[in-house]
Amino acid sequence: MAAAPVWSVDPRTGKQREQVAVEATAQEVDAAVRAAYAARGSLADRTVRAAFLRGAADQLEAAKNQLVEVADAETALGPVRLNGELARTCYQLRAFADIVDEGAFLDVVINHPDDTATPPIPDLRRYKVPLGVVAVYSASNFPFAFSVPGGDTASALAAGCPVVVKAHPDHPGLSELVAKVLRRAAAEQGIPDGVLGLVHGFEAGVELVKHPLVSAAGFTGSVRGGRALFDAAASRPVPIPFHGELGSLNPVVITEAAAAERAEAIGTGLAGSMTLGVGQFCVKPGLVLVPAGSAGDGLVKSLTDAVSDTDSGVLLDHRMRDNFLAGVTERTQLPDVDSPVTPGAGSEHTVSPGFLTVPAEKLASEGAYDLLLEECFGPVTVVARYDDDAQANAVLSRLPGNLTATVHLSAGEAAGEGRGAEILAELTPLAGRVLVNAWPTGVAVAAAQHHGGPYPATTSTSTSVGGTAIERWLRPVAYQNTPEALLPLELRDDNPLGLPRRYDGHLER
Amino acid sequence: MAAAPVWSVDPRTGKQREQVAVEATAQEVDAAVRAAYAARGSLADRTVRAAFLRGAADQLEAAKNQLVEVADAETALGPVRLNGELARTCYQLRAFADIVDEGAFLDVVINHPDDTATPPIPDLRRYKVPLGVVAVYSASNFPFAFSVPGGDTASALAAGCPVVVKAHPDHPGLSELVAKVLRRAAAEQGIPDGVLGLVHGFEAGVELVKHPLVSAAGFTGSVRGGRALFDAAASRPVPIPFHGELGSLNPVVITEAAAAERAEAIGTGLAGSMTLGVGQFCVKPGLVLVPAGSAGDGLVKSLTDAVSDTDSGVLLDHRMRDNFLAGVTERTQLPDVDSPVTPGAGSEHTVSPGFLTVPAEKLASEGAYDLLLEECFGPVTVVARYDDDAQANAVLSRLPGNLTATVHLSAGEAAGEGRGAEILAELTPLAGRVLVNAWPTGVAVAAAQHHGGPYPATTSTSTSVGGTAIERWLRPVAYQNTPEALLPLELRDDNPLGLPRRYDGHLER
Repeated sequence: MAAAPVWSVDPRTGKQREQVAVEATAQEVDAAVRAAYAARGSLADRTVRAAFLRGAADQLEAAKNQLVEVADAETALGPVRLNGELARTCYQLRAFADIVDEGAFLDVVINHPDDTATPPIPDLRRYKVPLGVVAVYSASNFPFAFSVPGGDTASALAAGCPVVVKAHPDHPGLSELVAKVLRRAAAEQGIPDGVLGLVHGFEAGVELVKHPLVSAAGFTGSVRGGRALFDAAASRPVPIPFHGELGSLNPVVITEAAAAERAEAIGTGLAGSMTLGVGQFCVKPGLVLVPAGSAGDGLVKSLTDAVSDTDSGVLLDHRMRDNFLAGVTERTQLPDVDSPVTPGAGSEHTVSPGFLTVPAEKLASEGAYDLLLEECFGPVTVVARYDDDAQANAVLSRLPGNLTATVHLSAGEAAGEGRGAEILAELTPLAGRVLVNAWPTGVAVAAAQHHGGPYPATTSTSTSVGGTAIERWLRPVAYQNTPEALLPLELRDDNPLGLPRRYDGHLER
Repeated sequence: MAAAPVWSVDPRTGKQREQVAVEATAQEVDAAVRAAYAARGSLADRTVRAAFLRGAADQLEAAKNQLVEVADAETALGPVRLNGELARTCYQLRAFADIVDEGAFLDVVINHPDDTATPPIPDLRRYKVPLGVVAVYSASNFPFAFSVPGGDTASALAAGCPVVVKAHPDHPGLSELVAKVLRRAAAEQGIPDGVLGLVHGFEAGVELVKHPLVSAAGFTGSVRGGRALFDAAASRPVPIPFHGELGSLNPVVITEAAAAERAEAIGTGLAGSMTLGVGQFCVKPGLVLVPAGSAGDGLVKSLTDAVSDTDSGVLLDHRMRDNFLAGVTERTQLPDVDSPVTPGAGSEHTVSPGFLTVPAEKLASEGAYDLLLEECFGPVTVVARYDDDAQANAVLSRLPGNLTATVHLSAGEAAGEGRGAEILAELTPLAGRVLVNAWPTGVAVAAAQHHGGPYPATTSTSTSVGGTAIERWLRPVAYQNTPEALLPLELRDDNPLGLPRRYDGHLER
């Protein structure tokens, strides 16, 4: 059987640009995983890892013009956004290099013998070691930041784990180019090519997560695809951790007082957030609880004006466009669902943004309206008008897990008057990031970041953005009664590497 | 249908002592979970949690005589061991109280806005919050330390998670008593009874892991039972973390030089470790690589003498005794497997310890001898005689994951001569705890402890013993742009709770 071709497609026209690869066979997946496994020793030295990550950032920046051009041709996300995303990706690679240098993630803990403990404590020293080869499943909507050079890859390499990436079919040409750039950066540090494998094809992705030498997986994508891979990871003879980001509604609550105070600004801000990147962000606000009554009406008016003024855009691929149009149609057909600005087809290859409104009471109990509590990828959001706090809470209590949950408060509420603290307490169980008077789109790369949340937002309690993303690819090992001469340098009393550590209960930094 | 009775059984006679409970119906499991869920708010205050844990330790010590008497009647582990295990359990509860007081596990990270980052960083503050109700599956072999008041329960309560325990059928009477003691300690802090639920019965255990309000599970037991529950946890509509400790062979390598130096001491030490608690430890050394030749012969001779001198003992229940005898028979029937001391039936209710020998080459490739690489619960170990290092390594490379891996080195090797470092590097991928010149039985409660390992040792990268066990029951939440007045105290700039934290990149302790 001839190998299935992998085509680069222009979403602006739906036309094939060129064949850039072929789908990987099971044998090719095996070869990629074995090459990655063989390369793991080359990542053992943290100095080398940090240099590799910084070199990768440098090389990506040097190739910026070509990379952005190809990325734009394959995703239609536009050069401004793509240049920004690439800058973010390079920033992230360098941030992980700094984390590797500092070494706090090794979580060094040293206990000297203590006969007063019950039972007595022997000499015990613990740190974290890399898990092994990591499979990374690229996202459609972030061809850099959540794809070949993205957070999963950067954090896995930072942890000392080689990576095999399953390319997303929406940007296979870019994936090939970026993999070459990363391998060039690896070669500069004497690291073999195998450290960064790349495979194409749905079946190859399934083979990858089942491969005995794959030790963990990271995924960003849909609930359906992510759950299938999660299930495959969990049902292996040896199950492996699967850190998947699957889907999120990202609820927003607007208080009555906030709407009364600044309906127009909130409406405009919401329009910007929900249509950003043609609504193709995993943190797009997909359900907005707006009070019934005149203040809320003003907000909806402002939202209507701003969304009406927003241009049509090209989605990442035609399947997504079809799904978006079908999803919108299905939702607008529900009784009592209105669309002040109807989302729909723009030209042959674009879609125009819009939003729906519905009485919040329809969402307060199980039924046909549950469809409105499912993510609809693209430039649409649902505004649910609530009569009172109890109704708003009833809707919140029915939501699945989310990446983010947001509340807009009045100045007084933000200062501690009224229900602000109570609403935050209601939102916290729903999400991994809680925002006040801000919009969830835009995910900073920071130590305090958490990009994850209760299922289906993510399949684990981990984050895929920020410094702690590295923890996903490590496991602890304790050494007991091990002579100084044989201990890893990280665990020696005199701390030759200057690592932060917990030393006989004392936190040393 | 009448509720199925739960009997307390004396393993020394096989006779029923008394009926202590009935198996929980699905409705009763539901009620226990809902009561636990309703109690979660009462654990929100860390001061209360710490006082509860310390009170539980005090109350368990006050009830010691009764508890040990019932535990001994149900497990035959003997008062010396059981008093020690209870002391360890109380020490662990107090150690977790100290961890709760310190608050490092909250993992507080604060980032102030930084416009120089790409993209700019907003005000972001992260800490960890409790996951929710935790299901704890008790172990047979540690009626205190890995059961109702054990590490899973203690760490979950320390994290702020209510617990529903599935009692082990080998000590249902003790489980009921301990649950009452813990609830008394809860009541002293104004915490409702529901914070510590207890259910009996196999079906109840399955219901428990599937309950929508259960957020995570901890398990200690067999590969078969643990894997079934792991699969149930992973296949829920909303999958939950399942931290299971399933099985471990705990390989030991004796170098030629070590055997030449102290064959007798090693043989005696091994006999003590493998027969401790009638071989019913999850960290029992189950495979020992001993060099062929005279030094190794001396070690086997010493082992033979010491095991021959070891008394028969009562296993935890009659099913275990049957499995032990069947497992030993199946193994000794393999060609070229010898038993210098044949393990077997002692009296009607006891078993006598023993060990098997086999040429290591039989284990170096797949086949019938793979049976010897499976854990056999009870007082038996397998001594594999190796001709050279390559043969020993070939056996090691075939092992599944383990809780521990041990090497005995000569004084010179321990000082850095010869292959010591190389052997440690080979053992590290196999286990979560690596020991030198020590025995794996005896698991200290310490910050640097790691009791876990590659599958099937554990189903996650976490530990069930030591301070970091608490991390299993938490998830991070980040607050973005949240006014000081609404922030949890843990995340405020002035650090009113005095928590260790990462503050704008600086580690504050």
